[in-house]
Amino acid sequence: MPLPATKRAEKIIARCREIAACTEVPGETTRTFLAPSMHKVHALLRDWMVAVGMTVSIDAIGNLRGIYPGSDRGDRLVIGSHLDTVPNAGAFDGILGVALGVALIEELHGEHLPFAIEIVGFSEEEGVRFGKPYLGSMALTGSLDDEVLQRKDTQGISVEAVIREFGLDPARIPAAAISSDAFAYLEVHIEQGPLLESENLQLGVVSAIVGQTRLQLRFSGQANHAGTTPMHLRHDAMAAAAEWISEVERHAKVTPGLAATVGKVQTRPGAGNVIAGEVFATLDVRHANDEIRRNAANALLTAATNSGGARGVQVSVLASSHEDAVPTDVALSKLLLEASEAAGTPARVMPSGAGHDARIVAERMPISMLFLRSPGGLSHHPDESVRPEDVEAALATTLAFVTLLKANHTIQATPQPATEAHA
Amino acid sequence: MPLPATKRAEKIIARCREIAACTEVPGETTRTFLAPSMHKVHALLRDWMVAVGMTVSIDAIGNLRGIYPGSDRGDRLVIGSHLDTVPNAGAFDGILGVALGVALIEELHGEHLPFAIEIVGFSEEEGVRFGKPYLGSMALTGSLDDEVLQRKDTQGISVEAVIREFGLDPARIPAAAISSDAFAYLEVHIEQGPLLESENLQLGVVSAIVGQTRLQLRFSGQANHAGTTPMHLRHDAMAAAAEWISEVERHAKVTPGLAATVGKVQTRPGAGNVIAGEVFATLDVRHANDEIRRNAANALLTAATNSGGARGVQVSVLASSHEDAVPTDVALSKLLLEASEAAGTPARVMPSGAGHDARIVAERMPISMLFLRSPGGLSHHPDESVRPEDVEAALATTLAFVTLLKANHTIQATPQPATEAHA
Repeated sequence: MPLPATKRAEKIIARCREIAACTEVPGETTRTFLAPSMHKVHALLRDWMVAVGMTVSIDAIGNLRGIYPGSDRGDRLVIGSHLDTVPNAGAFDGILGVALGVALIEELHGEHLPFAIEIVGFSEEEGVRFGKPYLGSMALTGSLDDEVLQRKDTQGISVEAVIREFGLDPARIPAAAISSDAFAYLEVHIEQGPLLESENLQLGVVSAIVGQTRLQLRFSGQANHAGTTPMHLRHDAMAAAAEWISEVERHAKVTPGLAATVGKVQTRPGAGNVIAGEVFATLDVRHANDEIRRNAANALLTAATNSGGARGVQVSVLASSHEDAVPTDVALSKLLLEASEAAGTPARVMPSGAGHDARIVAERMPISMLFLRSPGGLSHHPDESVRPEDVEAALATTLAFVTLLKANHTIQATPQPATEAHA
Repeated sequence: MPLPATKRAEKIIARCREIAACTEVPGETTRTFLAPSMHKVHALLRDWMVAVGMTVSIDAIGNLRGIYPGSDRGDRLVIGSHLDTVPNAGAFDGILGVALGVALIEELHGEHLPFAIEIVGFSEEEGVRFGKPYLGSMALTGSLDDEVLQRKDTQGISVEAVIREFGLDPARIPAAAISSDAFAYLEVHIEQGPLLESENLQLGVVSAIVGQTRLQLRFSGQANHAGTTPMHLRHDAMAAAAEWISEVERHAKVTPGLAATVGKVQTRPGAGNVIAGEVFATLDVRHANDEIRRNAANALLTAATNSGGARGVQVSVLASSHEDAVPTDVALSKLLLEASEAAGTPARVMPSGAGHDARIVAERMPISMLFLRSPGGLSHHPDESVRPEDVEAALATTLAFVTLLKANHTIQATPQPATEAHA
């Protein structure tokens, strides 16, 4: 039985919309890494955090860090998500998880748990300004190195210079590393996809952030006259690519959990009356299981070669990149699932097809993620929204999670091997 | 038994290369409609024509017209092709047919046939400068109207102004119309395709200039995140287009004589990690039989709709154009085939997949076309070439054709209904 929408959910949503008004671009929400509008975001969150008994600071990468002390010294639950946005963004991607964290503390009504809760608003996750995502969470895990600090935006301004400009000291970044007493991480985030909505569900517990293989392929045939070249004498790069794209779709459809996409196709010379001599195509393959993903990528590469070979079209890989999946912690996820059931809104276990700060945080502590249904599957768009009843369900689940965590505080969370998380 | 390459073939080739040196762009051959370099082309051809007993004039659209009188008054065989080129062209497209015509007259050694022979070097066929092909042959058939004369190039200069600039009088264009005593047209042209070479043949007799259907299609699905959108919830415009492109290829391969090409494909938004929301694709369908072509175009449009429908992707036609096929004259083509056999180099009957002046001339008289093998299928390229033995075979065939025409001068050539040729 879903919980009814309540005033506390409405308050979280109102706060997200208030934060969305902090922008670099009037009339829309665009807030990249340490843009001046981030000062206002920090000020708002600081006020809300202090009001519920938290101690607030800004670390040297610009992460907002609010600490709600525990009754015992030592352990710390970290709850976080990001404060930056894509250009012309919606009001909930990232910030919802932070605002919901503050609401959680408010709902404790001054009760102190046997562990502290640190709420982190990461300064950078989207990678918009510097083409490099996760600057905030990398500082938290201590993996933000000098190479990243020297990266420049399109104006030639470095990460380091932006930090100074905001009034922070890059030399103090090492001190932003999370305390070694952090024993668990929870990120509450909108799904940014249509799965929960399609199944009429409110919440999802993330099993893993999927691994990803990205390829750039070139199909090299022979450009020729579309009128004078009979079908049997063609080396049509687009016909070869088309057969392969169909195979990409077919293969993914019959492989549970696999997402495979050819999102960009370019034809050369690209004229209606000329057979395509070259086709450039992207391939994006994702799965929560690395072996399945690798096997799929290999099979699809073979399919491309075969489709080309049947037409005298050469296939080559121009670029490739691979990121392994990052599983969430089994024990924490189980607890989160139980919490969703206790709250009356049982969650679905599902992978996250997109990346999140949690994938970086996993280098340092066990992670868990709770997804809220995304109406229309819409995100990275001004019309991005959340339903109040889903926010309420997420808050109730998070409260139940903290309660279970308190009861199970002796729980032995499975540590993530750093190599697996970072491969 | 192929005829050996002889000095007369070498002479034709040398003349083509001499003409190729007349260019607007130093270092390459680029000669658009009435470019200043066309004066030099006219001067060279005039000298060669006068030397073999022809009377030469330039008509008001800039066609070079050489007349070799007949022994009787009245009938006239027209032999022609174009003098203009595409940018960075080869040395044989068009001009070969004119140079070979002059060589034919030379080979008559002063003998006068019962009909006159008029050799026409058309001033414009490629449509490069004004985006409108066949200006020369349209003047010959009397179909060049004022709308065409007012067309402007990218500099804002009109066809009419270019004619005046060249020293000609646009008001005299009606006088360029071919004499009503013209009873047959022959165009000798390089194949510009790989078919003859693939069959180890030297010559082709054209059965028809194929009809053409051109479509611009849009596949409208839904752009979405490549990671968070499961396969079963996608409306992937590229997957829909890919299945259709494969069907275009399959359909054309099993339909004899059909050429169907998707030469240009564009994906929107066109990012590797975003499912394509829109795909724009061209379709070019050609066949010598209009009904087969129309049926194919309709079937492929239905295939696109079906491929889209299976994925919730809408398919719409943004633009379409249709040109019916222009068959060559049956009797003339039969004579040309006999001539090729008499010359010892039997031709293959084949359609022309590209357009030629003959398609316009067909409005006024029965047409025939002789193709020469294109090494590598290459044309519209500086490396375009012809083999001397093929030029010799074409010259010998043309001579035999004229001899047969003389013997069959009472032959009743089937007139082309103007509506069919022009539809």
